Amino acid sequence: MGVTSTLQPEALQKIGYGLYVVTSGHEGHVNGQIANALMQVCADPLAVAVCLNKQNLTHELVSRSRSFAASILSEEAPLPFIGRFGFRTGRDIDKFTGVDVFPGVTGAPVVRQHAIAYLEVEVDRDMDAWTHTIFVGRVVAAGILSDGHPMSYAYYHDVKRGVTPRSAPTYVVHHKEESTVSKYKCKVCGYIYDPSAGDPDSGVAPGTAFEDLPGDWVCPVCGADKSEFEKIDD
Amino acid sequence: MGVTSTLQPEALQKIGYGLYVVTSGHEGHVNGQIANALMQVCADPLAVAVCLNKQNLTHELVSRSRSFAASILSEEAPLPFIGRFGFRTGRDIDKFTGVDVFPGVTGAPVVRQHAIAYLEVEVDRDMDAWTHTIFVGRVVAAGILSDGHPMSYAYYHDVKRGVTPRSAPTYVVHHKEESTVSKYKCKVCGYIYDPSAGDPDSGVAPGTAFEDLPGDWVCPVCGADKSEFEKIDD
Repeated sequence: MGVTSTLQPEALQKIGYGLYVVTSGHEGHVNGQIANALMQVCADPLAVAVCLNKQNLTHELVSRSRSFAASILSEEAPLPFIGRFGFRTGRDIDKFTGVDVFPGVTGAPVVRQHAIAYLEVEVDRDMDAWTHTIFVGRVVAAGILSDGHPMSYAYYHDVKRGVTPRSAPTYVVHHKEESTVSKYKCKVCGYIYDPSAGDPDSGVAPGTAFEDLPGDWVCPVCGADKSEFEKIDD
Repeated sequence: MGVTSTLQPEALQKIGYGLYVVTSGHEGHVNGQIANALMQVCADPLAVAVCLNKQNLTHELVSRSRSFAASILSEEAPLPFIGRFGFRTGRDIDKFTGVDVFPGVTGAPVVRQHAIAYLEVEVDRDMDAWTHTIFVGRVVAAGILSDGHPMSYAYYHDVKRGVTPRSAPTYVVHHKEESTVSKYKCKVCGYIYDPSAGDPDSGVAPGTAFEDLPGDWVCPVCGADKSEFEKIDD
């Protein structure tokens, strides 16, 4: 038998994850971001690892406070809620305005909204991973918040039609797809409006051209308005 | 608002994962094990992390060879196949007998059977995590192996009724459950035979008492025979 030496990056897209809002607080500053790369690494003591992009404000807060909270999102979590934490930067907006949180023991604001469970971690070791850092620590608090199914990363992509931010460890360059009607891409978050799918969550039927969307339609992921979209050449 | 300080370990069971056969080879020795704690940690370079129990033979081989392969299991993978890699030790049996593998570029035998994709990693850093080690490295080979859905850890538990080995980072002590008919537990792997569920994959209808199982019935997870089961007191 010969030795295989292919490298198909799409193989990595088959790895399974959940979806989390990771938050942290330090000296009066708080922030949160969406993360998928989180896993339990030990049962005794209870310990987890999370992987965050070094450019993110939440990374800075975790590095300084040496702690974080993670809320495990429900399948019911709407795209705009995820987009708020995943595609906006806490350097420009307060991501927590209007969001239901409670103060965690670590000082992080724990997101209760659209979450089925949460955990809080005191970081006691970390490892460089090129563009990212893997933070590992003991779970110091955890609880169930509501019924419901946890959102899987696959569900977020396949059912919710969510997209992956450039800062995620799982980001891949999107290739052009064939289509007879033009697709439009959100310049803020990368969401692609596909006329054949429409935007049912916002009452837009499949088959609706971008040009025919109502004037007050906004990106279902990040809330940007129509002017922030650009046509994609097929 | 008061500060919450509960610690409900069941919250951690809501974390999402896939299911993988992680293999490694070193100086003629090969082994493999089931793992769920695997995640991509960087997109450029392509890099992943995997968390393995220090007591496992595969941990020893990864530590020595500084490389491993991971096959991403399909939802179709049967319990006995998973049990073979998850509940037996490579110190006693050759886990690869009769299993379809191909030689990877890292020297690991890559499991093709019941897998939808694989990846191979050259480890270049690792971090102690109490009972476990987190190995991180660049992906040096990866490919799609077949169609099908990746097995999620939730699917393995909820649909396949699979169990968690003591050596997993996600292991939790099982609490007693109420029942009017006795359940029996496999002393080899921890699988619990629940009469109300039966074992449909083996042709055993729901409602079948343990005592009424055929004499040649074996544990659907690890293949142990009936004598290896003990009654659980409710």
